[in-house]
Amino acid sequence: MTKQIKFFAFDFAGPAHLSAGIWKHPLDRGHEYKSVKYWVEYAKLLEKGCFDGIFFADNVGYHDVYNGSYEEALKDAAQFPANDPAYIIPAMAAATEHLGFGVTSSTAYDHPYSVARKFATLDHLTDGRVGWNVVTSYSDSAAKNLGSGTQRSHDDRYGHAEEFVDVVLKLLEGSWEDNAAVVDREKGIYIDPTRVHEIHHEGEHFKVPGIFMCEPSKQRTPVIFQAGGSSRGVALAAATAEAVFTNATSKAGLKKQVDNLRQQAAAAGRDPNHVAVVQMMTVVTGRTDEEAQQRYEEYKKLVSYDGAMARYSGWAGLDMSTFDPDVPLKHVKTNAGQTMVDLFSKMDPTKEWTPRDIAEYIGIGGTSPVIVGGPETVAKELQSWVDETGIDGFNLGNAIKFQDIKDFIDNVVPELQTRGLMRTGYDGSTLRENIFGQGNARLASDHPGAKYHKTSA
Amino acid sequence: MTKQIKFFAFDFAGPAHLSAGIWKHPLDRGHEYKSVKYWVEYAKLLEKGCFDGIFFADNVGYHDVYNGSYEEALKDAAQFPANDPAYIIPAMAAATEHLGFGVTSSTAYDHPYSVARKFATLDHLTDGRVGWNVVTSYSDSAAKNLGSGTQRSHDDRYGHAEEFVDVVLKLLEGSWEDNAAVVDREKGIYIDPTRVHEIHHEGEHFKVPGIFMCEPSKQRTPVIFQAGGSSRGVALAAATAEAVFTNATSKAGLKKQVDNLRQQAAAAGRDPNHVAVVQMMTVVTGRTDEEAQQRYEEYKKLVSYDGAMARYSGWAGLDMSTFDPDVPLKHVKTNAGQTMVDLFSKMDPTKEWTPRDIAEYIGIGGTSPVIVGGPETVAKELQSWVDETGIDGFNLGNAIKFQDIKDFIDNVVPELQTRGLMRTGYDGSTLRENIFGQGNARLASDHPGAKYHKTSA
Repeated sequence: MTKQIKFFAFDFAGPAHLSAGIWKHPLDRGHEYKSVKYWVEYAKLLEKGCFDGIFFADNVGYHDVYNGSYEEALKDAAQFPANDPAYIIPAMAAATEHLGFGVTSSTAYDHPYSVARKFATLDHLTDGRVGWNVVTSYSDSAAKNLGSGTQRSHDDRYGHAEEFVDVVLKLLEGSWEDNAAVVDREKGIYIDPTRVHEIHHEGEHFKVPGIFMCEPSKQRTPVIFQAGGSSRGVALAAATAEAVFTNATSKAGLKKQVDNLRQQAAAAGRDPNHVAVVQMMTVVTGRTDEEAQQRYEEYKKLVSYDGAMARYSGWAGLDMSTFDPDVPLKHVKTNAGQTMVDLFSKMDPTKEWTPRDIAEYIGIGGTSPVIVGGPETVAKELQSWVDETGIDGFNLGNAIKFQDIKDFIDNVVPELQTRGLMRTGYDGSTLRENIFGQGNARLASDHPGAKYHKTSA
Repeated sequence: MTKQIKFFAFDFAGPAHLSAGIWKHPLDRGHEYKSVKYWVEYAKLLEKGCFDGIFFADNVGYHDVYNGSYEEALKDAAQFPANDPAYIIPAMAAATEHLGFGVTSSTAYDHPYSVARKFATLDHLTDGRVGWNVVTSYSDSAAKNLGSGTQRSHDDRYGHAEEFVDVVLKLLEGSWEDNAAVVDREKGIYIDPTRVHEIHHEGEHFKVPGIFMCEPSKQRTPVIFQAGGSSRGVALAAATAEAVFTNATSKAGLKKQVDNLRQQAAAAGRDPNHVAVVQMMTVVTGRTDEEAQQRYEEYKKLVSYDGAMARYSGWAGLDMSTFDPDVPLKHVKTNAGQTMVDLFSKMDPTKEWTPRDIAEYIGIGGTSPVIVGGPETVAKELQSWVDETGIDGFNLGNAIKFQDIKDFIDNVVPELQTRGLMRTGYDGSTLRENIFGQGNARLASDHPGAKYHKTSA
């Protein structure tokens, strides 16, 4: 049987996400991000298109590295402004039955008790359709505005994050037995207190002695997503993620990443197939190859150099304004000790990248690969990514909001469905079942959260 | 002209709120709190009933003082379980056009930058219909599970809360000029960076140097609600609240509270009419006085002594299990140094209250007064509360969820409308206009947040 490919729409609660300057296109609807009606319309479109879910990126900081200022980031709406995406989900859930909702939530500036309550609430309101992308946050601006002024070191962030996730799992899986809420009107017992347990967590970063405040929801624990690419990040993902977002720029590189991740998951005692891999991808399409190419040319003309550099400087922690746009970058060191060649050579090691090359590349879809073509071209290319790398699906970015995904649904989805590569309807009712099949609403038994799970006395 | 009375439905994101044991009534729908469809149906009912808004209480702790345990609290679902109510709001907003949404959010375990972002997001998604009830939190259990293990002292909590609100106001009013988002597709400028300003906040509790991440919303600042009854709480309310929730047990006591609050608001340089007062009230009604009385008798039979004591012990910080249920409490000292007589004598100083009297009183609607009667009886009594105390409206609790408010809307609302005491439709579109009239979408000019407001360069 042909393996069906999973699709998530990659989005952001602001006018413009990874693409730079493309919001100027007349068909872009990014400025509608403030309207609940916009998101409801989008949710209905995605469910009609049989998407597994929508996935919201988030970051509590802003880009202020380029020119040492946020000026160009603001001009191009570079991941800014940014509302809190978690609040959009319940409105989209009320308008749909099957679509899943992944959302980024950082471990840096919140408490695991609050985060557990947030996701329990969202899993109730979506009736089991929510996922949590665990991130540790990278912006100095966030640290300045929300924290003590400086970020934790990279390793310390991961130690903190590991314990954070552990506390959340204990609260969601380990405090309540499944049938603790008996709602017995005759005996006058709503909750049987013998079936609710204190978690007694005492760790390096958190002390949480008590019981959890929320009833178990359909999934209990949201589907755990992660995206970390560092060795510590991959280790955390291999241990606790159920789905990993990758952002590889070549199939060969992606295959290595997938193999490494699955090996580490197996070494951690998990079935490697219990970690789904979802690769970021940007598709520019139309009814034909020609139409797609024409739209792509329109986008290319709109790319903003400064908007791209404002983003890239923030991601790399390196002020790109200090380099000549047209001189190749060879041995420039970044904060993280990598050279610019390291960062971009994974795309094309033979090329000498200039800042302008980088801007043109990331201007459309960020560091994601881009596929341009009509239905057949796109379907074939997507299938080859899956076949050659072992991934499970795609996190579909956009250059312009709403219309790019609508074009994909109108043109590519029917082609994928005809080829048996995409679902034509939904079987299960939860996000976890969208990913792992009907009957898998709860954490797999080999997930570290499963050991905390309380079934019944 | 007759003064129109404001109405909010007082609710909670759990199966049972202040009433004890009444969830056993066959018409109660509290157990549906997990369903987004339930809340959408409720929102439509409230808007049909011309309510000004729904108001969500919240508390991040649970009751574990009675018997030194959470056992009886769990059995009676005493404000437990409790989802995070803020996530319900966008779904209710998508289904309505005018209904407002007040929600409690504590200053104790969150950061003002995150809270400002939360309310900016909610104000966008509701298109200007959100309010923030500022509380400082009182539960030891919350402090144990989310904090360092002990609560701040009462005065320290208020100092912290005052600075917290100040930071939120600076972010919401002071960082962006109204027209900073120019969205100029020709010039390629989404936000004019010269119209976004760093707030440079440096205080005792918080350092927030940067810019805010969210565009100004229709109200910019949510309507600020407060409920504190202590002298420090009243001072904070007089200085910054636009609406104050009171929970008086007699008209005479309420009039004193209202007069004191308005005097303090005036002393703080504000128009006393810019602070609306909304009294908590529980109404048990039906088509006739007899029907209402019959329902009330049904409720009384369902009151749970232990459920009421679990709540009351938590509120008073005093384990009520140490007293004989039928012996009058005279000089028992509470944690706060009050005697039990102090606490209950404000209701009826001539009465000698036993624990059982207290349970019967608070079992239906908590410490709120209760009006029982058909449409005319209730309308007259509500009007007399307004006329004799100078309040602006009511925060309407319930004994059973959904049905009590539906009965009020079916029976009392038409009677109030006939008498010119309640709106028959909506004029403005924001929560602040629901309270203060059309054209008042933004903070009044005498509010402390207004001095931060950035209009235009």
